[in-house]
Amino acid sequence: MTTHLNAHAVILAGGIGSRFWPASTPERPKQLLPLASPRPLIDETLERAAQLFGHGRVSIVTSNQLATAFDRMGVLGGTTVLAEPVARGTAPALAWAAHQLERRDPGAIMVSMHADHRIQPQAGLRDSLARAVELASDGYLVCIGARPDRPETGYGYVQLGESLGDGGHEVGAFVEKPDHDTAVSYLDGGHHLWNTGIFVWRCADLLEAVATHAPEVPLGPLDRADVEGFFEGCESIAIDVAVMERAGRVATVEARFEWDDVGVWDALGRTRESDDAGNTVVGAGRLIDSENNIVWTETTRANVVGVSGLVVVEANGELLVMPRSESARLNEARARLDASGSDEADA
Amino acid sequence: MTTHLNAHAVILAGGIGSRFWPASTPERPKQLLPLASPRPLIDETLERAAQLFGHGRVSIVTSNQLATAFDRMGVLGGTTVLAEPVARGTAPALAWAAHQLERRDPGAIMVSMHADHRIQPQAGLRDSLARAVELASDGYLVCIGARPDRPETGYGYVQLGESLGDGGHEVGAFVEKPDHDTAVSYLDGGHHLWNTGIFVWRCADLLEAVATHAPEVPLGPLDRADVEGFFEGCESIAIDVAVMERAGRVATVEARFEWDDVGVWDALGRTRESDDAGNTVVGAGRLIDSENNIVWTETTRANVVGVSGLVVVEANGELLVMPRSESARLNEARARLDASGSDEADA
Repeated sequence: MTTHLNAHAVILAGGIGSRFWPASTPERPKQLLPLASPRPLIDETLERAAQLFGHGRVSIVTSNQLATAFDRMGVLGGTTVLAEPVARGTAPALAWAAHQLERRDPGAIMVSMHADHRIQPQAGLRDSLARAVELASDGYLVCIGARPDRPETGYGYVQLGESLGDGGHEVGAFVEKPDHDTAVSYLDGGHHLWNTGIFVWRCADLLEAVATHAPEVPLGPLDRADVEGFFEGCESIAIDVAVMERAGRVATVEARFEWDDVGVWDALGRTRESDDAGNTVVGAGRLIDSENNIVWTETTRANVVGVSGLVVVEANGELLVMPRSESARLNEARARLDASGSDEADA
Repeated sequence: MTTHLNAHAVILAGGIGSRFWPASTPERPKQLLPLASPRPLIDETLERAAQLFGHGRVSIVTSNQLATAFDRMGVLGGTTVLAEPVARGTAPALAWAAHQLERRDPGAIMVSMHADHRIQPQAGLRDSLARAVELASDGYLVCIGARPDRPETGYGYVQLGESLGDGGHEVGAFVEKPDHDTAVSYLDGGHHLWNTGIFVWRCADLLEAVATHAPEVPLGPLDRADVEGFFEGCESIAIDVAVMERAGRVATVEARFEWDDVGVWDALGRTRESDDAGNTVVGAGRLIDSENNIVWTETTRANVVGVSGLVVVEANGELLVMPRSESARLNEARARLDASGSDEADA
């Protein structure tokens, strides 16, 4: 039997994942979709957390609406649900979660993870988190960093500072999403890791850092009655910006696992199985003379002939056809489609 | 009020139009689809025939199954239904129709047309048929020919022989679908017309030609009881091959109308309205940064972003994505899709 990590898990599960439209919708967000395996992301994530931290030491931060959806799916188990009254980004959410945990278990260390990322193998995650928990016990705010294997422009990066031993480093700087040339230089240089959005800290340390560095997140007593007022009083801000980029004692641990944020349709080519021609098909689909397509169907069967590099998605009454290379810009494309006004031709 | 043409119309409506799959199916063949206008092709064709020939002088040759479908649509009106017991191509169908008409109206001239072609304007068709009826009265088997405006390799051609005046010519030869270079030479040379499949003849002349030239279509007494035996005894053969290419007194009349056989998805770019970027959308669909696509949806809304020259069809639980340029080879592609065996991935 495995010993559990001596920490609490906080799973962030409030987002929609709008770049998986039309499969993702506000009612059925990304974490409910089988994007990294045949199981919904949330199901994998909660199972993983329960195995690593033990039942009863996993919380999920989400909306009331999604909490109901998760409950209906039967994935919550013993998970504590922290329902945000309103979404204000990760900084208010994590400050609130840290406050709740600190009250329940003074001196507790928390590990925050997103519900909709792909991580494997589990053993590698466990090793990395164990090292991060050590650093957190020394007062560090820790970000898990993943070694890049491509010049990804869709992720933020962590610049490595002085080594702390055993995979740990001080953080030189947090860097926003780079342009392609910069991403290539990071890949070649070897001194930058992807910011995975997995953080480890003592709850008390995070709360102190928020109080010191993040005026956008005004901490008050944060008791049950005050939660709504707390969120309403916060600016919408990410923890990276509010705390990690500003605080002093910040470290990173290099991930001993593969990590993918499964951010856009293009990612399915990495996270789901592909055929010999590089086509990834989820749902019913048949392809000939076609390479490197992403196909997702829910109520129809796709028949794809002689095309390459496309995303073809049928879900929720919508059909999407676009180049994979454009899939990171899906939100902009949707806004333009909505504005195009050419909704329906005579039939 | 218009005077009707002194002839009977025979509408061939037995085909499926399998190259419009997945919109066309055996249960809902091409002629039931709105491929040339917002109305089903069969509806347009029967209305056109009734206007030109008068109610009561229009017959339709089709299967029992489709006759039921047409009846359910309410498009038959006073049309006489000739239900083929089994499909054997156009030669047996037209010989049978000619026999029926000759018995009802000895000396009758018949005009045969396909149910699923696009013809306009009506006045031009009327003029062309009036000239063809004159030549048929002189004992000619007449094929209406359309002046090519592109090097089409999907049509058969009629080579012009000696002029018969007023748009009529003897036929030099019937030519099968040419390769591209030959089609270009036909277009440039000006001596070849497209074989529209619209024929005009005296019923008695056709029956005599069949008896003389078409052993594949053994004419017997052809009374009601014998119809099944007649069709069973025929080889499957087109009237072009069985009679027109073999008979002596054959003429063509140049069409004074636009004609399209609406044979493949690509044709919708000609027959249905396109937007400024050359996209043709039937059903719900929105496009940005996309040119020259054919989009057909029935239960979903298409969202097409940054792609060009594609056919995107959603119908009958199937989704088809292929280049327009490949749409003439859809039947081969379907056979290969069926053989691919990669029907369903785990979801």
